[in-house]
Amino acid sequence: MSQSLTHPDRLLPSDPGMRRIARSLLESVKDLPILSPHGHVDAAVIAENSSFPDPAALLVSPDHYVVRLIHASGVPLSRLTPAKGGTEGADSRSIWREFCKAWPLFDGTASGHWLRDQFQFVFGLKGIPSVESADAIYDELSAKLQEEDFRPRQLFKDFNIEVLATTDDPLDSLSSHKALAEDPTFHGRVLPTFRPDAYMNIAHPSWKENVERLLSAAGQVDNGYKGYIHALESRRRYFIDHGAVSADHGVRTPATLKLTESEATRLFELARSGTFTTAERDAFEAHMLYQMGRMSVEDGLVMTVHPGSFRNHHQPSFEAFGPDTGHDIPFAVNYTESIRPLLQDFGTAKDFHLVLFTLDETVFSRELAPLAGFYPSVYLGAPWWFLDAPDAMQRFRSAVTETAGFSRFSGFIDDTRAFCSIPARHEASRRVEASFLARMVAEHRVSEERAHEIMKDTVDTSPRRVFKL
Amino acid sequence: MSQSLTHPDRLLPSDPGMRRIARSLLESVKDLPILSPHGHVDAAVIAENSSFPDPAALLVSPDHYVVRLIHASGVPLSRLTPAKGGTEGADSRSIWREFCKAWPLFDGTASGHWLRDQFQFVFGLKGIPSVESADAIYDELSAKLQEEDFRPRQLFKDFNIEVLATTDDPLDSLSSHKALAEDPTFHGRVLPTFRPDAYMNIAHPSWKENVERLLSAAGQVDNGYKGYIHALESRRRYFIDHGAVSADHGVRTPATLKLTESEATRLFELARSGTFTTAERDAFEAHMLYQMGRMSVEDGLVMTVHPGSFRNHHQPSFEAFGPDTGHDIPFAVNYTESIRPLLQDFGTAKDFHLVLFTLDETVFSRELAPLAGFYPSVYLGAPWWFLDAPDAMQRFRSAVTETAGFSRFSGFIDDTRAFCSIPARHEASRRVEASFLARMVAEHRVSEERAHEIMKDTVDTSPRRVFKL
Amino acid sequence: MSQSLTHPDRLLPSDPGMRRIARSLLESVKDLPILSPHGHVDAAVIAENSSFPDPAALLVSPDHYVVRLIHASGVPLSRLTPAKGGTEGADSRSIWREFCKAWPLFDGTASGHWLRDQFQFVFGLKGIPSVESADAIYDELSAKLQEEDFRPRQLFKDFNIEVLATTDDPLDSLSSHKALAEDPTFHGRVLPTFRPDAYMNIAHPSWKENVERLLSAAGQVDNGYKGYIHALESRRRYFIDHGAVSADHGVRTPATLKLTESEATRLFELARSGTFTTAERDAFEAHMLYQMGRMSVEDGLVMTVHPGSFRNHHQPSFEAFGPDTGHDIPFAVNYTESIRPLLQDFGTAKDFHLVLFTLDETVFSRELAPLAGFYPSVYLGAPWWFLDAPDAMQRFRSAVTETAGFSRFSGFIDDTRAFCSIPARHEASRRVEASFLARMVAEHRVSEERAHEIMKDTVDTSPRRVFKL
Repeated sequence: MSQSLTHPDRLLPSDPGMRRIARSLLESVKDLPILSPHGHVDAAVIAENSSFPDPAALLVSPDHYVVRLIHASGVPLSRLTPAKGGTEGADSRSIWREFCKAWPLFDGTASGHWLRDQFQFVFGLKGIPSVESADAIYDELSAKLQEEDFRPRQLFKDFNIEVLATTDDPLDSLSSHKALAEDPTFHGRVLPTFRPDAYMNIAHPSWKENVERLLSAAGQVDNGYKGYIHALESRRRYFIDHGAVSADHGVRTPATLKLTESEATRLFELARSGTFTTAERDAFEAHMLYQMGRMSVEDGLVMTVHPGSFRNHHQPSFEAFGPDTGHDIPFAVNYTESIRPLLQDFGTAKDFHLVLFTLDETVFSRELAPLAGFYPSVYLGAPWWFLDAPDAMQRFRSAVTETAGFSRFSGFIDDTRAFCSIPARHEASRRVEASFLARMVAEHRVSEERAHEIMKDTVDTSPRRVFKL
Repeated sequence: MSQSLTHPDRLLPSDPGMRRIARSLLESVKDLPILSPHGHVDAAVIAENSSFPDPAALLVSPDHYVVRLIHASGVPLSRLTPAKGGTEGADSRSIWREFCKAWPLFDGTASGHWLRDQFQFVFGLKGIPSVESADAIYDELSAKLQEEDFRPRQLFKDFNIEVLATTDDPLDSLSSHKALAEDPTFHGRVLPTFRPDAYMNIAHPSWKENVERLLSAAGQVDNGYKGYIHALESRRRYFIDHGAVSADHGVRTPATLKLTESEATRLFELARSGTFTTAERDAFEAHMLYQMGRMSVEDGLVMTVHPGSFRNHHQPSFEAFGPDTGHDIPFAVNYTESIRPLLQDFGTAKDFHLVLFTLDETVFSRELAPLAGFYPSVYLGAPWWFLDAPDAMQRFRSAVTETAGFSRFSGFIDDTRAFCSIPARHEASRRVEASFLARMVAEHRVSEERAHEIMKDTVDTSPRRVFKL
Repeated sequence: MSQSLTHPDRLLPSDPGMRRIARSLLESVKDLPILSPHGHVDAAVIAENSSFPDPAALLVSPDHYVVRLIHASGVPLSRLTPAKGGTEGADSRSIWREFCKAWPLFDGTASGHWLRDQFQFVFGLKGIPSVESADAIYDELSAKLQEEDFRPRQLFKDFNIEVLATTDDPLDSLSSHKALAEDPTFHGRVLPTFRPDAYMNIAHPSWKENVERLLSAAGQVDNGYKGYIHALESRRRYFIDHGAVSADHGVRTPATLKLTESEATRLFELARSGTFTTAERDAFEAHMLYQMGRMSVEDGLVMTVHPGSFRNHHQPSFEAFGPDTGHDIPFAVNYTESIRPLLQDFGTAKDFHLVLFTLDETVFSRELAPLAGFYPSVYLGAPWWFLDAPDAMQRFRSAVTETAGFSRFSGFIDDTRAFCSIPARHEASRRVEASFLARMVAEHRVSEERAHEIMKDTVDTSPRRVFKL
């Protein structure tokens, strides 16, 4: 454990002139709280406040960024996943050993950076993991995880999180969110997010069953298309009543389309019968994304769109280990034509906020910055998933800022289920923003005074405003 | 007005070694005149030499880069556009106040840079606009615009413009160009550019009427396809006789196609009847782009192609405020297959110059540099529109130079209707070119001596050669 | 000849902090041998060890990177190509003069860099070529090429090449490879590579004839689809027996598809009859690429895929001067969907190595890094062809490393037929890798100790492992 985990100037530019400015910008926001308006932490973890399980279950198995790269190196998923139900699996210590052995794979990756930050600042480790140190670190972490100071609520406070949004099934009771909101001893805000993909994607194997449950949960008598729409509206209202500020859409493509009610009804009935063409599926899904926009205009939920991932690319791994096991692979998307039907009708609608994300960097300068630079409703989503990394974030900034400025950015989102990585992710984002702004200042493109204002807007004011926090 | 507008080292690299070289390169071209072979200034403005109207009408409303970002911040177009005809609108001072209030939106954008340069070097302002200073600046600028020194011809001289190309309708009489050419007191060159889009795009609502006017203006007896082609050739000749050096094509895609004369005739007649399929429209337009290439080979006009913009993306804004109001949005294009029919026949034709532009950066390294690196006719157009900005220009240079070198570049174009921004735009381009070359020198990839030669070629020799000035 | 050819710090970063680190990384690998697992040198050149012909035939005419840019400047191919058969052509000294005159065109290009390195370090020239120095340099080089020290085998040794893979027709006898392997006086390894494109691409004009020859060479009695597959398997075995470690596939697209044997048989027979649709051609080629993967799983040959080039874009040049004359132009590709059928079945197959290349940079971050970051079989191919240049390599590193780390890289390939440029190309790659790593170290993202390990892995360990050397 000879190498240190982190350096105070990590991710800052090498050029001394820029580094000085970047340090100053970073310092200026160090006390601002974490706002996390989109992520995947389970609200029950905070509500129940149980100790985290062992180090592998906390830090390795659920993190598909981490699992995927170890898998690529030749370790089967069965040695990285705990056994459950009928699937093969491994015990926690073995998984941890695989992870420590694989440590060098993460050099230069975003995951490597987040892990080092967590290890040093959350868990107080002193050196890097290795085959030799694996067991000792496992024991040290296991012991820490039993301490009161490492319970979720204490960490929530220590991390200086003000708002944490979760991502939830439309039929979730939101009881954990309710419990937290009503608990006078808990001072953070844990907000649900409405995520209706499984109720809109008619090719999903359980769509029909999902819709039955949806109609039933919403108490709809009309079980046709109209009832379906009303049920979605009703569940959105339920989410809003429990603090939700946004609805999230993990679609294949950002296609939108306004069908007539009769055509929508026809496709809805086809979908329930299970017999539809690919074109009909595409049309219905595009129509439903349009409908979600229409509902957002009416009920005020911020609409976020996350398209362009080929989910579960490797069928055998999906069958053996389920979804989110590291083989969702991006593909090319376009926004200009596909999002247009929605923007035609709602692009200038009052208080409509539409945050667009992409895994395809080519749309940053070509489509997203031009769209966000005209439509008052459109905001630039933070670099997402594979692009949530220092160089990719710099490319994003370089690609969008010259067209859309800084004001059209919706702020960083961590998008993570790895609770303990949240501070590291926000810290990385702040360091990258400070570095970009430092270059703008050093190249005399933005004044140092304005850079400080922009830094604060980026970290604090913009996400509050765009996500209506 | 505490912050200064510009810094002598703006847009130059932070690294001290590179900055020294960049300064020296920039200094070496400071007396070279502005060559502007593609833009949208109205020749009548120079010919008539009237005082410019008020500051808002000069600097805000006609600049869709500026209007769009203020609109995105939530200001309706009606508060940014002067009333005219039946449309809503605002008075100049109100528009100016919106602009000054919106000033911080432009930090980090290309527009912000150009505005600061103009304010300091054209108008001699001392600080940045703000809500507080809006009226005072408005009054100061209004007074200046009445001075003789701020008439277009004096500015033309002060800006050290040698050549300014306009963009004109094929039926334009070019009387302003003629007047300027014949005026012994005016020493610049103001050249027309032939832009026949509205006569080639058969889906344009007024195409049929345009063609009638075209045939009539060219005195064509034959009013069929052959007459149409001859009329276009005839108008090109008229432009050449009035000093034109290029023909510009703002097409949806760069598709080209050589139809037989009988097939072209059939589609032309279909177009006139108003009944054609999308495929027939695409075929005819691709054929006409090919024909424009053929004519350029014959008459020597440089052919410039500007594809890939979805014009008037937001229909309600278009209906209320017309075109060029900030919602033209780029989309993906390809050149390799689409431009091939034209290059098959004319790619090595003597003295044929074809300058290719794109809003889709992905084609820079993938298609444009390889095409320009083989075909003697093909030149790289400057980074255009949303890409005419410091970082985007650096990306362009990085993407094309390693394949195509510096010799295949056609030089900077400002593409602007904002006359007073012309020096700022050329200055920005020179600073970026100097910065890129400074990096090449500092990394020992180009000698400092050659960098000076390349700098001069880029700013002066190349545009003269490629645009046949 | 006043300008010097190269600088010791060429291609290293300007920032002094980074440069120091980069120098140290570069120094640490300076004695490691060249491993060239993919290239186009003719094995007979090494086997026969004849003197190279004149300077133009060695350095100009066969290098389509060089020829293309001179051609773009207006020099016809007939003045850059030696006469042969019925084609027009020029004598060597004239070609050399054209090249020297064109020297400034190569400033800033990858070719320019390689040429300068070769001239200084292989041939010991003292200054840059020019019109004035052309004849003197020609004479100096001609004389050197007659010396024993400039014979291929001595250069092979001086270049410190350990492994050089060639690219060969499946029916090649591999006699030169055999001769070299059996020669006790030759200590390098010259390995054949199986490249079956002309036997898989059924639209190739000589496909039918090629298949006849293939069946005959493999001694197949069954001359149907099964025999065809067996013949390919048999020739692969022949290559393996002669030292081959990989099979290379220069396909239009990376589409893969698993047809049933009966469907494959049907398409094979259609292909032989010469009547098939485009869709049938695409299906058969995609099926055959899948079959090549299946064979690689079985016989262990590393599978490399080079898609996305529109070959011989300018038909008239192709007809007059043949292929590889500088007008192969890239186009957009996608891997996520197209490579999936292959990865479904073989993505986790034991010891299957699949190295994916692209000329379309957009797939680096979007598709290739995510694929290589999950599938143990998938490795990132080095930036290829137009992308084998310093800035493009930096973009590659930036695009892939944050997702896939350093371990999924297959190492540099020079892909060249220009034997004397091999050291320059590997040196350039090492300098770029050192520069990227130096930035990682300077930004405290990778420790200096680990950077040294990664440098060695990149240059030596990874290519040995991935290409099974």
